[in-house]
Amino acid sequence: MGFRSHTLHELAELLGGEVAGDGETVISGVAGIMDAQEGDLTFVANPKYVESLKTTRASAVIRKREVQSTLPSIILEDPYLGFTRAMTLIVGPSVPECEEGIHDTAIVDPSAEVGENVTVGAFCQVGRGAKIGANTKILFGTWIGDHVVVGRDVLVYPNVVIRERCEVGNRVILHPGVVVGSDGFGFARDGECHVKVPQIGKVVIEDDVEIGSNTTIDRATMGVTRVCQGTKVDNLVQIAHNCVVGKNSILAGQVGISGSTELGEGVVAGGQAGFVGHLEVGDHVVVGAKTGVVKSAPAGTTLLGFPGRDHGLAKKIYAYSARLPELYKRIRELEKKIDQLEKGILNGKTAKNDR
Amino acid sequence: MGFRSHTLHELAELLGGEVAGDGETVISGVAGIMDAQEGDLTFVANPKYVESLKTTRASAVIRKREVQSTLPSIILEDPYLGFTRAMTLIVGPSVPECEEGIHDTAIVDPSAEVGENVTVGAFCQVGRGAKIGANTKILFGTWIGDHVVVGRDVLVYPNVVIRERCEVGNRVILHPGVVVGSDGFGFARDGECHVKVPQIGKVVIEDDVEIGSNTTIDRATMGVTRVCQGTKVDNLVQIAHNCVVGKNSILAGQVGISGSTELGEGVVAGGQAGFVGHLEVGDHVVVGAKTGVVKSAPAGTTLLGFPGRDHGLAKKIYAYSARLPELYKRIRELEKKIDQLEKGILNGKTAKNDR
Amino acid sequence: MGFRSHTLHELAELLGGEVAGDGETVISGVAGIMDAQEGDLTFVANPKYVESLKTTRASAVIRKREVQSTLPSIILEDPYLGFTRAMTLIVGPSVPECEEGIHDTAIVDPSAEVGENVTVGAFCQVGRGAKIGANTKILFGTWIGDHVVVGRDVLVYPNVVIRERCEVGNRVILHPGVVVGSDGFGFARDGECHVKVPQIGKVVIEDDVEIGSNTTIDRATMGVTRVCQGTKVDNLVQIAHNCVVGKNSILAGQVGISGSTELGEGVVAGGQAGFVGHLEVGDHVVVGAKTGVVKSAPAGTTLLGFPGRDHGLAKKIYAYSARLPELYKRIRELEKKIDQLEKGILNGKTAKNDR
Repeated sequence: MGFRSHTLHELAELLGGEVAGDGETVISGVAGIMDAQEGDLTFVANPKYVESLKTTRASAVIRKREVQSTLPSIILEDPYLGFTRAMTLIVGPSVPECEEGIHDTAIVDPSAEVGENVTVGAFCQVGRGAKIGANTKILFGTWIGDHVVVGRDVLVYPNVVIRERCEVGNRVILHPGVVVGSDGFGFARDGECHVKVPQIGKVVIEDDVEIGSNTTIDRATMGVTRVCQGTKVDNLVQIAHNCVVGKNSILAGQVGISGSTELGEGVVAGGQAGFVGHLEVGDHVVVGAKTGVVKSAPAGTTLLGFPGRDHGLAKKIYAYSARLPELYKRIRELEKKIDQLEKGILNGKTAKNDR
Repeated sequence: MGFRSHTLHELAELLGGEVAGDGETVISGVAGIMDAQEGDLTFVANPKYVESLKTTRASAVIRKREVQSTLPSIILEDPYLGFTRAMTLIVGPSVPECEEGIHDTAIVDPSAEVGENVTVGAFCQVGRGAKIGANTKILFGTWIGDHVVVGRDVLVYPNVVIRERCEVGNRVILHPGVVVGSDGFGFARDGECHVKVPQIGKVVIEDDVEIGSNTTIDRATMGVTRVCQGTKVDNLVQIAHNCVVGKNSILAGQVGISGSTELGEGVVAGGQAGFVGHLEVGDHVVVGAKTGVVKSAPAGTTLLGFPGRDHGLAKKIYAYSARLPELYKRIRELEKKIDQLEKGILNGKTAKNDR
Repeated sequence: MGFRSHTLHELAELLGGEVAGDGETVISGVAGIMDAQEGDLTFVANPKYVESLKTTRASAVIRKREVQSTLPSIILEDPYLGFTRAMTLIVGPSVPECEEGIHDTAIVDPSAEVGENVTVGAFCQVGRGAKIGANTKILFGTWIGDHVVVGRDVLVYPNVVIRERCEVGNRVILHPGVVVGSDGFGFARDGECHVKVPQIGKVVIEDDVEIGSNTTIDRATMGVTRVCQGTKVDNLVQIAHNCVVGKNSILAGQVGISGSTELGEGVVAGGQAGFVGHLEVGDHVVVGAKTGVVKSAPAGTTLLGFPGRDHGLAKKIYAYSARLPELYKRIRELEKKIDQLEKGILNGKTAKNDR
C-alpha cells in the first residue's frame, strides 16, 4: 500500500490538534502502540496502554494533554477519533483499486443512467431504467435490478444483489454478498398450507450507511424497509420486511430484526441480538450481545439477556441465579429448623432438649 | 409496476366472497389501511384496525361479516388470506421481469436438458447432465452443478449455488445467495487433527418450498438432506447435513438446525432458534424465537427459552426469576426470625423480650 | 459417482487394520449400517448400533475387536476414523468435477502468477499480482483481489470473494459464498456520527483450514485476522477483525466472534455460540451451542449458557431454575409457619392451640 507521508505538524493542523515535541517528525505509517515501528504514528486512548508509551517504537503519538510522554505528540481531546482521521489521511480509504469505466463484460441496459466516473466491474448487470450516481464503484459480479437508484460515491463490493426498485443513497458501502430487496417473509395460512404474500414494497438505504458482508435486507410487503442515514450494519445481519432502523444506529454481527420493528436513532445492538416483530425501540436504546428483545423499549434504556430486561435487573438476576444451589440449601435448612421448632413447641419442650 | 384493475364484483368472485356495497367499484391497487389511497383495496383482520375503517381512503375493504363498514366490501371468513390472493391478482406475483431464453453469456452444458420457456440469465453456468424444467427462471450469476435436477416453474434469484446431484422440486423459490448442497460439516478426530468425512449425499428440496437469501443447506454425508413440500425458510438459516424439515414448516430468519435433526410437519421456529443435532421434533411443534432446542420434542408442544422448555414452565421461570432479588431478601428475613425464635426458646424467654 | 472397488484385505492394509473373516470380500460402496446394501462397507462406533450388525445388508464392517460379528470385518481401534478414511479411498474426495485450466470467460490479470494445473472457472476474476498455487481449483464466479496469495491444492467453491492482500494456505477449502477480508466493523464516534476506521490489515487463513458456506471473515484494522492451521469453520459464521482462531479448532454453524478475541488451539464452539470482543479463550476450551462467552476463559474449561458459565454450575442453575415455582411455594409456607410460631410465642401460647 502506498502510504502518504506527512510531518507531525501537517497532521496536527489537519486534525485540529496541537503539537508537543518535534513537529518536523515525518510520519509514513500508522500502527497500534505494541506493533508500531519507526515512522509510525500511534495513539493512546485506553489508560492500560499509557505505560507502553515508554517502550513503543512509534515515532509519534496522539494523546490527551493529561497523558505524559516525551514522544513527539499531537494533543487531542479524542485520540481515537483523531487517529482514525489520521489513518485515512496517511493510508487512504482502503478501497480496492479498480479501473474506471464500464468493464467489457458488464451488461448495462441502454435505458440505465450512469453518472460520471462510474465503475461497473466485470460480470455485473445493471437493469432497465436503473440510475447510478457519479463516482460510484460497482466492483464485480453484482446484479442491479430494474429501476434501482444508487447514489453518488457509493462503493459496492463483489457479488451483491440489489433487487428492482430499491434505493441506495450517497456514500453508501455495501460489502460482498449483501442482498438488498429480497422478498419479505410473509405468508397467509390456508389450512396447513402457506400462501405467499406478494412483497411489492422496496428497500431504501439512506446516505452514509454501511452494510456488512452477506447481510440481507428484505423489501417491504407494501411500503418501505428503511435503513436511515449514517447507520452501520455488520456482517450476516437480517433486517426483515417493513423494518426501520433509525439514524446513526449500530447493528453488530448476526443481529436479527423481525418484520415491522422500528428502531429509533442511535440504537446500538450487540452481536447476535434479536428483536421480535412489530416493536418500537426508542432512540439511543442499547441492546446487549445475544439479547432477545421481546417488548417495545422506551428511549435510553439498556437491555440485556433473554428475554431482554433492564440491564440492572438482568445483572442482578444473573448474579442471584448463580447462587440458586446455595439458596435451595438455605431453604432446606430453614424447613428443618422450623420443623424442629414446631415439634419443640408442640411437645411443650425447648428446642434445646430436642437436640 | 403495472397493476391490473378489477371491479370489486370481479374480485369477490375470484376470491369466493360476497360483495357488500357497490360491486362496480374499480380497484387498481392494494395497501394497508393506514396508507391506502383512492382506488386501493385494503383489509381488516386485526381488531385494532377496525376503527381505522372510518378514516381510511381506500375504495374498498375485505372484512369479516361481523365487522361493520359503509365502504364497498368483500365479505370473507379470512380477510388476510383473501387480501393475499387479491394482491396476487392485482399486482401479479412480484417477480423481476426478465427475458426468456438462454442469455448470450450463460454457459449451458450441451448435455443439460432445458425445458420450454426456461430463462437462464447472464453469467450463469449449468453443468453436465443437469435438467431444468419448463418455465423455470434462473436469473443471474448462478451455478447449477452437474446432474442437478430443477423442476418446473422454479424461480432462482441471482448468485445462487446448487451443487452437483441436488434436486429442486416444482414451483420452488430460491432467493439470492442461497447455497444448496455444500459439504456437511463432518470430521473424524485423529489426535488433535480433524479428518474430513467425505460428504457424498445430496439435498432434495421438494415442491413449493421457498428458501430465503443467503440461507445454506448442506448435503448429507450419505443419503439425503430434505426440505419437504410447502416449507418456507427465511434468510440466513443454516440447515445441516442429513436434516429433514417436514412439510409446511416455517423457519424464521437465522434459525440453525444441527446435523441429522428431523422436524415433523407444520413445525414453526422463530428467529434465531437453534436445534442441536440428532433430535426428533414432532409435528406442529412451535419453537419460540431464540429458543435452543436440546431434546427431542413430542408433537404439538411449544418450547421457549434456552435451553428450550415447555412454554408454560418457561414463562413461569422467567417471571419468578425477575423476583430473585426479592426472594433472597425474604429468605434472609426468615433466617433472622428463626434465629431469634431459636434463641428465644433456648433462653426460655419469649421472642418479645428478646427484641 | 464412480466408486473404486477394493477387497477387504486391500482396505485393511491401507487403513492399518486387521481382517476378520473373508479378506477377498469385494467392497464397492459405503453406507450407514441401516442403509447399507450388498457390496457396501459399514462401521459400528456407537454401541446402540451393535445390535444392527445382525440385520445389516452390508458386506463388511469396521469394528473394534470387542464388538462381535460374523460379518467380514476390519478391526480398528477407531472405527469412525477408519470408515472416514475408507470413504475417501472408495468414493474419492467428493469434489465437483471441473476442467483444468483457465476458463475462456475468466479474467486473470497478466501480472498474476498461476501455478501448474490450476483451474480458474467461468466468470472468475484474479487481480494484479495475485498468486495461485499448483493444483488449486477456483470454480466459478469468484473474485480474487489484488496481491492475494492462495496456496497449493486449494478448493474454492463458487461465488467466493477474497479481498486484496489476504492469504490462503495450502489444502484450504472455501465453500460457496465465503467472504474473506471484508472491512472490519470499526468506527470512531464523533458526536452522533460514526466515522469509519480504515481497515488496512488483512486475513491469513493457514493450511488445511475449511470455511463453510456464506461465512464471513473480516480483515484486521491493522495487522492480521488469523485462522490457524487445521481449523474447521461451519456455515454462516462471523469472524470479526483482529480475531485469532487457534489451530485445530472447530466452530459450528452461525458462531460469532467479536473483534480482537483470540481462541487457543483445539477450541470447540457449538452452533450459534457467541464471543464478545477482546477475550482470551484458552486451549481446548469447549463452548456449548448458543452459549454467550462474556469473559476470558482458562484452558480446558467447558462453558454453557448465557452468559456462559462453567458447565457444572450452568447445569445446576438450569435444573434449579425449573424448580423456582416450587421454591416460591416453600418460602411462602415457611413464612406462614414462622408467622404462626411468632404469634404463638408472643401470645405465650403453644402453636398447637393456635391452630
